Amino acid sequence: MLNELRKQVCDANRALVGHALVILTWGNVSGIDRARGIVAIKPSGVEYAALRPQDIVLVDLDGKTVEGALNPSSDTPTHLALYRAFGGIGGVTHTHSPCATAFAQARRGIPCFGTTHADHFFGEVPVTRLLRKAEVAGDYEAATGAVIVERFRTLGPLQMPAVLVAGHGPFTWGRNAADSVRNSVALESVAEMALHTLALAPSSAPLPEYLRDKHFLRKHGSRAYYGQK
Amino acid sequence: MLNELRKQVCDANRALVGHALVILTWGNVSGIDRARGIVAIKPSGVEYAALRPQDIVLVDLDGKTVEGALNPSSDTPTHLALYRAFGGIGGVTHTHSPCATAFAQARRGIPCFGTTHADHFFGEVPVTRLLRKAEVAGDYEAATGAVIVERFRTLGPLQMPAVLVAGHGPFTWGRNAADSVRNSVALESVAEMALHTLALAPSSAPLPEYLRDKHFLRKHGSRAYYGQK
Amino acid sequence: MLNELRKQVCDANRALVGHALVILTWGNVSGIDRARGIVAIKPSGVEYAALRPQDIVLVDLDGKTVEGALNPSSDTPTHLALYRAFGGIGGVTHTHSPCATAFAQARRGIPCFGTTHADHFFGEVPVTRLLRKAEVAGDYEAATGAVIVERFRTLGPLQMPAVLVAGHGPFTWGRNAADSVRNSVALESVAEMALHTLALAPSSAPLPEYLRDKHFLRKHGSRAYYGQK
Amino acid sequence: MLNELRKQVCDANRALVGHALVILTWGNVSGIDRARGIVAIKPSGVEYAALRPQDIVLVDLDGKTVEGALNPSSDTPTHLALYRAFGGIGGVTHTHSPCATAFAQARRGIPCFGTTHADHFFGEVPVTRLLRKAEVAGDYEAATGAVIVERFRTLGPLQMPAVLVAGHGPFTWGRNAADSVRNSVALESVAEMALHTLALAPSSAPLPEYLRDKHFLRKHGSRAYYGQK
Repeated sequence: MLNELRKQVCDANRALVGHALVILTWGNVSGIDRARGIVAIKPSGVEYAALRPQDIVLVDLDGKTVEGALNPSSDTPTHLALYRAFGGIGGVTHTHSPCATAFAQARRGIPCFGTTHADHFFGEVPVTRLLRKAEVAGDYEAATGAVIVERFRTLGPLQMPAVLVAGHGPFTWGRNAADSVRNSVALESVAEMALHTLALAPSSAPLPEYLRDKHFLRKHGSRAYYGQK
Repeated sequence: MLNELRKQVCDANRALVGHALVILTWGNVSGIDRARGIVAIKPSGVEYAALRPQDIVLVDLDGKTVEGALNPSSDTPTHLALYRAFGGIGGVTHTHSPCATAFAQARRGIPCFGTTHADHFFGEVPVTRLLRKAEVAGDYEAATGAVIVERFRTLGPLQMPAVLVAGHGPFTWGRNAADSVRNSVALESVAEMALHTLALAPSSAPLPEYLRDKHFLRKHGSRAYYGQK
Repeated sequence: MLNELRKQVCDANRALVGHALVILTWGNVSGIDRARGIVAIKPSGVEYAALRPQDIVLVDLDGKTVEGALNPSSDTPTHLALYRAFGGIGGVTHTHSPCATAFAQARRGIPCFGTTHADHFFGEVPVTRLLRKAEVAGDYEAATGAVIVERFRTLGPLQMPAVLVAGHGPFTWGRNAADSVRNSVALESVAEMALHTLALAPSSAPLPEYLRDKHFLRKHGSRAYYGQK
Repeated sequence: MLNELRKQVCDANRALVGHALVILTWGNVSGIDRARGIVAIKPSGVEYAALRPQDIVLVDLDGKTVEGALNPSSDTPTHLALYRAFGGIGGVTHTHSPCATAFAQARRGIPCFGTTHADHFFGEVPVTRLLRKAEVAGDYEAATGAVIVERFRTLGPLQMPAVLVAGHGPFTWGRNAADSVRNSVALESVAEMALHTLALAPSSAPLPEYLRDKHFLRKHGSRAYYGQK
């Protein structure tokens, strides 16, 4: 079932290695079929080089496995919370890429210091609050999703396709699995640039809003003119 | 038309990946045929691995597409402004390489701390002012070119084949497309070294002028003695 | 003798290069057959690309060579001290990976700043004291082992499979040779993240204990639910 | 003439790329035949991938080309000054590797913070003084050699096979061309570790002398016991 989606999700997971976003088994990508309400996701703890489309696990939006012999990623409840809350997204990526994770560990958002950032993320990449003790003791991975959704109460997930979970690391999303991976690639790079920018000038100001808006909107939305038709 | 130039520009764009100067589609290279006044440039948003010489777009110096089925890079008006203002250059490269971009985001020039820098850039690599709101609202990419040209009013583009656009990133140029890429390679490396130098000694002095002059002039100009005849 | 163990240890040593944990001949991996009390270890000063299973040296727990034409790693007495003291381990890796070594050189432990760290190491990765002059003058490599064991008097080696020897570098261990290499991979990555975290926020607090416990215990011990059965 | 030496020097130059010590044409390696007093060195400005043994230039110790159609490296007079002053060396490498060059640009030696450093360099890697205006105006590359030799008046070149030329970059040497490259590899890595160490603890103390001596002397000299016979 959903062989094309499985293949896309398998390819997207394997692409994490080529983009140097993961080591060991430190990341996972999923994709959703909205019509059927089924999510395809990496199995837990399986190495990327060995991953085949038939290993991808299919779960419904409540987390019940629909097809697949392996356990889904332990982060599955977080992915599902994002799909349920953000109706417009088709893929989710979670990594522990080093620079984005450093911001998450320092519990700081990534300021929008330049047009590279504004091309992908419409302002400062937000950081969540730390999860509370009771949230961790309960359904931890679902609570991780909930704290992201809480942080986005006043943010648009399509304009800000990334978040840093405090003390943990980044999640990104996109139109589909591959697009969510591209947003993780962009996020790690702007995090690296922001680290260097802060080293050079600790009180660096963010980009003026008129420049931020210009760059985001030339690539996204109805007036975009970047790329091909 | 201009098949050899297209091939050179295609190769130069693809070389960006091998030099680790770009990720995703974050960079573009162009070259010019001065006799015909035609610029060959990367199409917008196309991945490097898929780029073929026939995909390269030919435009005239006013930005009109002369040949090519694809949209030219959205940065084309910036390239054209440089070709119009700097008569001696034959190629232009734009990247978002992380260390050079960090200096652009911190809105600082890259000081000439060593002979590696002086071998390629005759003094501090300059940073432009930020574009103003009205400039961004108008023909933004042309204004980006204008702000570079403004910054070079008292600088020689052949002695300083690089600039940092404030809040954006680096542009470099050279005798041809490949030479402009080499200058982007050199720029990113001297930016990385400058970052480390400032971390070790925040008030580092630039190289004395006599050493800067010696190194630049042993590689460039009529008395150069580096390399082969 | 012990051809399978030799092969595992040979593969684990060669994997150090692919994980970018070593340059030149700066690292070594060993594995133990507990039933026979025999340790298989890299020969001293041999390059990884040339290493074959038959080059792996077999020594007993007192350091006597049992089989093998080459000298064992000069760090062999350190490995043996760990096998003797930590009954539950099956492999040991020593590298000079740059970020973990920087913490060892700064004589600081690596704080547990995030869940990436807590997934592998149950709290701050400890640093030993410096060896004393008399210890260095005597059986130096054995004393290096002793100072690690001393540091672990109140720590569990299975919950903290890594240590930084002050002024020297990291040792990690695991269920077998390959597992000890994976712990070196994880250690270098969390060290890199911790460096960046401290650059962003020098007084960063470690992860709350309830989050640290949750992450370590979802991957380790009887209630682990990460990975496959 | 000296085909074996040419081949070794060609291989050593090409190895610079694999070790990520050079970009563009930013480095050169030479080797010497002491019996004949002839030095084999990289030609100036030639790319590494295209370099063949027959391109290597042979010069005598006064810098006269003995065989070879190409210009020798512009740094040849520096190499020759080192061969004349340091009788025990057989190869010289010059690179602009980023971390070692950053120390040279900050005009700081690299402190011996750990055993990785002490395994290769017997104490702080020294930095020269800046060349004076008159020295740069004269035979600049020979003066670069002279300032290194001046710095080594009280240092042993076999115990300290590396130097940082202030405002310029590192030179290393060794028993032969390949050995001098290995010392450049080690130098760049200890420079990177020292940068991180200083970021973590700006007033880090160097390794105690008894540890420094132990590590250097277990790998070098008559009592060495590292490696194979």
